[in-house]
Amino acid sequence: MKFRVQQNELNKHLNIAQRGISNRSTLQILEGILIEAKDNKLKLTSTDLEISIETTLDANVIEEGKVVINSRIIGDIVKKLPNDEVFFDIVNNKVNIKCQKSDFNIISNPGDDYPELPIVIETSKFDIPQNILKTAIRQTSFTTSQDESRAVLTGVLFEIEDGILTFVSLDGYRLSMRKENIGVKESLKLIVPARVLNELNKIIEDNDEPISLAIANGQIIFTLKDTVIYSKLLEGQFFNYKDIVRTNHNTTVLVNRKNLLDSLERASLLAREQRANLVKLSITDDYLSIKSNSEIGDVFEEIELIKKDGEDVNIAFNSRYLMDGIRVIDSDEIELNFVSSLNPCIMRAKDDEKYIYLVLPVRLAQDDF
Amino acid sequence: MKFRVQQNELNKHLNIAQRGISNRSTLQILEGILIEAKDNKLKLTSTDLEISIETTLDANVIEEGKVVINSRIIGDIVKKLPNDEVFFDIVNNKVNIKCQKSDFNIISNPGDDYPELPIVIETSKFDIPQNILKTAIRQTSFTTSQDESRAVLTGVLFEIEDGILTFVSLDGYRLSMRKENIGVKESLKLIVPARVLNELNKIIEDNDEPISLAIANGQIIFTLKDTVIYSKLLEGQFFNYKDIVRTNHNTTVLVNRKNLLDSLERASLLAREQRANLVKLSITDDYLSIKSNSEIGDVFEEIELIKKDGEDVNIAFNSRYLMDGIRVIDSDEIELNFVSSLNPCIMRAKDDEKYIYLVLPVRLAQDDF
Repeated sequence: MKFRVQQNELNKHLNIAQRGISNRSTLQILEGILIEAKDNKLKLTSTDLEISIETTLDANVIEEGKVVINSRIIGDIVKKLPNDEVFFDIVNNKVNIKCQKSDFNIISNPGDDYPELPIVIETSKFDIPQNILKTAIRQTSFTTSQDESRAVLTGVLFEIEDGILTFVSLDGYRLSMRKENIGVKESLKLIVPARVLNELNKIIEDNDEPISLAIANGQIIFTLKDTVIYSKLLEGQFFNYKDIVRTNHNTTVLVNRKNLLDSLERASLLAREQRANLVKLSITDDYLSIKSNSEIGDVFEEIELIKKDGEDVNIAFNSRYLMDGIRVIDSDEIELNFVSSLNPCIMRAKDDEKYIYLVLPVRLAQDDF
Repeated sequence: MKFRVQQNELNKHLNIAQRGISNRSTLQILEGILIEAKDNKLKLTSTDLEISIETTLDANVIEEGKVVINSRIIGDIVKKLPNDEVFFDIVNNKVNIKCQKSDFNIISNPGDDYPELPIVIETSKFDIPQNILKTAIRQTSFTTSQDESRAVLTGVLFEIEDGILTFVSLDGYRLSMRKENIGVKESLKLIVPARVLNELNKIIEDNDEPISLAIANGQIIFTLKDTVIYSKLLEGQFFNYKDIVRTNHNTTVLVNRKNLLDSLERASLLAREQRANLVKLSITDDYLSIKSNSEIGDVFEEIELIKKDGEDVNIAFNSRYLMDGIRVIDSDEIELNFVSSLNPCIMRAKDDEKYIYLVLPVRLAQDDF
């Protein structure tokens, strides 16, 4: 097996393939990247059996073949080589890598030892712009649960109904939901592991080039120009989120997003001294005030309301959960909706129906405000 | 005690004072910063009893006084406040901080509880440009020892003789030495803890404004425009470094610094798999070659010599120690000097007598090259 390839191209594609390598792999062969040289192309494959990545680049293939090389070692070597042509010559399990005056010999595993990826039979397929998927992942993947015993909550629901693709996730304390009109006719409902989406988000770019999503037997396949990412779907029934997201509110206020975030960050400096990060919000006619106290002191913050509809409300939150939501809402002004001190707060960007973030309050007696 | 002060100024000076706070302090009061308000100035003081910092800024002092506030808490609060006037009002141990619509109440300790810094009687004093001190610290503080049982090796020797200030440190494996002609007449010899120099280096700037160095009873005092840093000196006899640094060599080569560093970094990728980071250098007529091998493979690197005087040499090193030295030498071309495979290598920038870096070889039989 022999080929020549440009250092920067190989480095770029190794970085992509490395996203499919798990740190906690127990199978030694899965710490490697499968490199297949054929028809003047290199195909790099990585998998941890949950996510699989295939990425392809041009090369000058002199002798076809396949080999498995440790991901970290090949990645480190190629990253440090000068940007010039790199020559690979693999005989049995010895890999010789030459570039300018550098000459490496490293050991490898036979390509035949690499596990076969399951054959995928696609049942439906549609395209969306990469930046739409990127935003949806950023706004929803962080509200998934880390608790492996509630597997469906470790993923993001992708649901298509009436041409609308809805991304939803919830972790028992907050819920995030993004809707996009993609004009696809079919209906579907599947749960994609958040871990896979977070790796995917490092690969896809922030432009409107299409990414293709295909559904197969228990898998979702994301296809970019030269890269394919396969992910297992999570099995189980997703929470009936539509019952949680109500649309009638008793109080709706509009505030400056940056002022709200700055005030919460300051209030959290003292709140974080206690475990619950507790902050108390009070909405009166013209102001939203934030109070927090702990052993080391107390803080009072006041933010002018841009607009208020409805009743005054006193309500308490874990400040971290509030800030997480505000940080992913891209808007100068933010709308907060309340029913009572016992019901969730629903946040959204002003005049934007596409994304909502819902957070449960911490129950406090009214005397405690 | 009452004062008004600009947020960005207070933030800047708190950052300076925080460098005197130790993470491993056992005295609770030393986790605080002493704030003294007097004559429309604020003086911030911190100490861990090894290093002490005093930094002064303008303020509008309405009522004089002093107070100790936890360094992390006051630092975090001030950093997050908007850049506007901040009002402090301290009554007993309660500190009220107001800025725009933010209102904090935190607890404090009485200023009288703060330890008195020892009175300093200066015996000699001279100025040097800040950037000269900054470069000397960067080039010498990293070759100090971490071993507290050999206290003098945890510091950098400052020696003045015949108008030359020499900075020297060594850790048993390598030595670095910087000389600067400062034209001072007196002679002195003292050892400054590397930890203090590293903190100092984050405070001083990379320009030729003067910093004043004063020597007192067992202390060195660095004075900048509005900041004074006191450090204890290390007691003991410094190693007789002049005997180590020889000037007659059997081999002298000149190489491109970047090529040498890149090649060593690549060779280290395999070398680091073994504990000693062992790399073998061979100098022949036109090339310096680097070899390294470990369980996972081997690497061979070749660098063209720009110039060579003297004999061929085979010599082995811990690659990390070689790279550390190359990284702090500011020059396109680097000179390497050898006596034999058993003697140290001395590196310097081409045509620069001010700085040398000396590193001990790893002893190998000649058959092992």
